[in-house]
Amino acid sequence: MRDVTAENITEVFTGYFGEDTDPRTREIMISLAQHLHDFTREVNLTHDEWRKGLAMLEHAGRITTPERNEFVLFSDVLGLSSLVDMIHSNPEATSSSVLGPFHVSNPPPLAIGGDMKRDFEGPVLLVEGQVRDVDGTPIANAQIDIWQTAPNGMYSSQDPGQDIHSFHGLMTADGNGDFSFTTVRPVSYTVPSDGPVGELLDAAGRHPWRPSHLHYIVTAPGYNSLVTEVFPDDDPYLDEDTVFGVRKDLVMTYETRKPEEFPDGLALSGTVNDPFLYVKFDLILAKGSL
Amino acid sequence: MRDVTAENITEVFTGYFGEDTDPRTREIMISLAQHLHDFTREVNLTHDEWRKGLAMLEHAGRITTPERNEFVLFSDVLGLSSLVDMIHSNPEATSSSVLGPFHVSNPPPLAIGGDMKRDFEGPVLLVEGQVRDVDGTPIANAQIDIWQTAPNGMYSSQDPGQDIHSFHGLMTADGNGDFSFTTVRPVSYTVPSDGPVGELLDAAGRHPWRPSHLHYIVTAPGYNSLVTEVFPDDDPYLDEDTVFGVRKDLVMTYETRKPEEFPDGLALSGTVNDPFLYVKFDLILAKGSL
Repeated sequence: MRDVTAENITEVFTGYFGEDTDPRTREIMISLAQHLHDFTREVNLTHDEWRKGLAMLEHAGRITTPERNEFVLFSDVLGLSSLVDMIHSNPEATSSSVLGPFHVSNPPPLAIGGDMKRDFEGPVLLVEGQVRDVDGTPIANAQIDIWQTAPNGMYSSQDPGQDIHSFHGLMTADGNGDFSFTTVRPVSYTVPSDGPVGELLDAAGRHPWRPSHLHYIVTAPGYNSLVTEVFPDDDPYLDEDTVFGVRKDLVMTYETRKPEEFPDGLALSGTVNDPFLYVKFDLILAKGSL
Repeated sequence: MRDVTAENITEVFTGYFGEDTDPRTREIMISLAQHLHDFTREVNLTHDEWRKGLAMLEHAGRITTPERNEFVLFSDVLGLSSLVDMIHSNPEATSSSVLGPFHVSNPPPLAIGGDMKRDFEGPVLLVEGQVRDVDGTPIANAQIDIWQTAPNGMYSSQDPGQDIHSFHGLMTADGNGDFSFTTVRPVSYTVPSDGPVGELLDAAGRHPWRPSHLHYIVTAPGYNSLVTEVFPDDDPYLDEDTVFGVRKDLVMTYETRKPEEFPDGLALSGTVNDPFLYVKFDLILAKGSL
């Protein structure tokens, strides 16, 4: 096309595709170009604004490492990560929510009733739940990969003061799908805000906080894997999670219980002398192989 | 919002903005998020596809240097760079076209009638033109920054075999806006295709070629600066420039002339013994201060 114009450029772009392009690739790229072109025309993007956007991407490239991925963080704070999660969630199963960048490989095994807090200080939290099918049938021996922040608001991979496996555990639920463990209550924390994502949040008048949560990856043969997080209903950031991770069915309640109500047979049984927090949250999987 | 859904996420995003956000920042970010969300929903983007897109951005970040900017190249092959040019072009002036990454600072002065080919082999090309206002008035003493590829298809900044200033020159037009210089005919060339942009072009069944062109940046006090390129009408890639730079009014014709038609008074006068190419292309500026 020797007469490209602001009006026909999307059509010209589409016309450039080879005849035997994979149809899905074609669909994705044409939709992406159409929306980027529409955005550019709609806001009448100036050269300075275009350069600013490119400079933010370059900045993200310079600071991205295996430990800190600023592009994922852009996707998170723009709501894209959550949107991809939501459009692929099964409405009958527990909602999925952002994986985030802090999961570590090879988490240490955690027995049912085991303790994840180790020597960390803080209120004891007892978590119980059951892994079930959407029709209510217990799923025996599901694997639950659990992780959370330490009381200082940092994940082990961010914090040289923590063992890389601290606040990580891999549990196998029992034959009835039941699981339980103790930990300390996770805390609210901020996403990294010293890079271009922080600049974007500042420009939007937004804060970098996430409400506190427990992360789970739940897997069982014959079921879709579930990547999710659960949030307490009293967190001050519940209505303004900067990465849009909160779903109605992922909000749970911490109850305060007396020390004498702490059950027997758990790793911490006999050592809890103060009131503790208790939460029951079941995890529902949908059949499939994703 | 504790009930973020695939349907309301754009609204939730919009609701997060601070009250005193700069209105232009707000407009741009909301339009961008709306279009990215619409794209994601429209194609039902999967987690694997989302990860693939992020991996391409990370790859771009790893290979971007001051000399090679893969993010600009993404913008170029998606048509964004050209679109920003076009929506800010004055329809009465010469169209603007992509600056590209190969311009160098501090180009050497080039006298009117001077030669840019130096010792390079190839058919001599004589270029003449006039810098004028949109109403036809000549613009005296406009500055014209000129650059192009060497006959090997490379710009000086890409090619360790060339002086950094080879095929670059800064000319001041005369009191009548007239300019002229000699060079060799620029050649078609490929954009870098060994990174993620090359992967995108491959996936789309697209080639990485650009039609040959001369680059100009034209400036004169009281006028908008013009960044443009001019293309010969016989280039095989004219209808499929991979960065969408061709505009109808930027296409010109190289005429073949006999050696005895070569004018006097130019740097190469008296040395041209073979047929040479001739092009006349005027440059029209619009009043303004951009």
